[in-house]
Amino acid sequence: MSKGCVFGVGLGPGSQDLMSVRADRLIRGATHIAYFRKKGRRGHARSIVEGLLAPGVVEMPMEYPVTTEIPFDDPRYNQLLSTFYEHSVAQLIEMTEAGCDVVVLCEGDPFFYGSFMHLYTRLRNRVPVSVVPGITGMSAAWTASGTPITWGDDVLTVAMATLPEDTLVERIRQTDALVVMKIGRHLDKLRRALKSAGREADAWLIEYAAMENQRVVPLKDAGDKVPYFSIVLIHGHGRRP
Amino acid sequence: MSKGCVFGVGLGPGSQDLMSVRADRLIRGATHIAYFRKKGRRGHARSIVEGLLAPGVVEMPMEYPVTTEIPFDDPRYNQLLSTFYEHSVAQLIEMTEAGCDVVVLCEGDPFFYGSFMHLYTRLRNRVPVSVVPGITGMSAAWTASGTPITWGDDVLTVAMATLPEDTLVERIRQTDALVVMKIGRHLDKLRRALKSAGREADAWLIEYAAMENQRVVPLKDAGDKVPYFSIVLIHGHGRRP
Repeated sequence: MSKGCVFGVGLGPGSQDLMSVRADRLIRGATHIAYFRKKGRRGHARSIVEGLLAPGVVEMPMEYPVTTEIPFDDPRYNQLLSTFYEHSVAQLIEMTEAGCDVVVLCEGDPFFYGSFMHLYTRLRNRVPVSVVPGITGMSAAWTASGTPITWGDDVLTVAMATLPEDTLVERIRQTDALVVMKIGRHLDKLRRALKSAGREADAWLIEYAAMENQRVVPLKDAGDKVPYFSIVLIHGHGRRP
Repeated sequence: MSKGCVFGVGLGPGSQDLMSVRADRLIRGATHIAYFRKKGRRGHARSIVEGLLAPGVVEMPMEYPVTTEIPFDDPRYNQLLSTFYEHSVAQLIEMTEAGCDVVVLCEGDPFFYGSFMHLYTRLRNRVPVSVVPGITGMSAAWTASGTPITWGDDVLTVAMATLPEDTLVERIRQTDALVVMKIGRHLDKLRRALKSAGREADAWLIEYAAMENQRVVPLKDAGDKVPYFSIVLIHGHGRRP
């Protein structure tokens, strides 16, 4: 029996019709799917494909042993996650060795800050793996903002709000266009950094881009809390005839 | 009669099945399409949708009056292009006022360094416009490279090779992950900038990502000429359990 393949399939930003035709076909045709989720939750990736799956599909949820309970610079964090990824990889390999293809559902684009990458680097020399890119959450965010993100020679910087404040200030000061993700409890720090860089007034907050509850608001008018699916943008102003 | 709508539809990186389900539906159902092309050429956007169009679709090619014949810092360049965009917009408005929806085919993602943006800013207060994001060429490039582009807190910088050499050096030095586009005749300058920043050995060249003639090669092993569809990448090495 020949080995099955693991497909890392980008689902895009969250609207079913924004996944690629290739992703749509693979998901509808899947006999085995796997996806990450927080313990006790349905899982956002799983929610996106609701109604597309074939009857009888085998589902393998991969439940994070930890999310924000332990800070990521604690050595236990790495240890717990590493064990979790190894275990998930063992399960995926078992399925492929039984001759089954497995579709791993990946929010956004699998190779762009995605959890799938932790499986991928452990799988790639052991079983066939195929990756399907997706529309990123940031593309959905700038589309939702109604204003193009980059023109002409604009430099775009993508940074995580988890970075130290002085690093954020420097990056924000030096770029034309900006995307900030992983905001959560780093919102105050991000606001201070934007202010220090003199660019607070140009920043937009996009919540749930391409989802039903999408919301676009100047960052200064946003409240003190932002949901997990939030992106801050500054649009570029490059050359335009 | 109610006005039609202009749809700016992202085609993704060039493979038909990497366009979104929404784009696929809009294109198959279109009665009127428009697309940019170089004079005397078929047009890459038009080629991507070959075989998807309904019989009898009305096609409106928009032919650039100039591409590289006049440098973009020559005032005539802006003047010529501006007139061209105004003319194209007038044609699109005429179609929508006759009650027709028009699908404008956009390579990649419409709001990310796309020509559609020049139409969009002129159309948006005059007719209904709807934008469909797409998978970017850079997503296809890092997927083709077989290595994730960004991990953990990595900063990603997207820069055009058309920038001055010292600007390129500074950006390349300061970022974790890098994407460089619009390479063409700026290849030598880009190579010098990568070398000055001490990162030449980490750079990959991806040609025709997601297309039939896709090629992935360390930049140092690439020749002295690169095709229009070329992207240079440096992968990030951030936190990974």
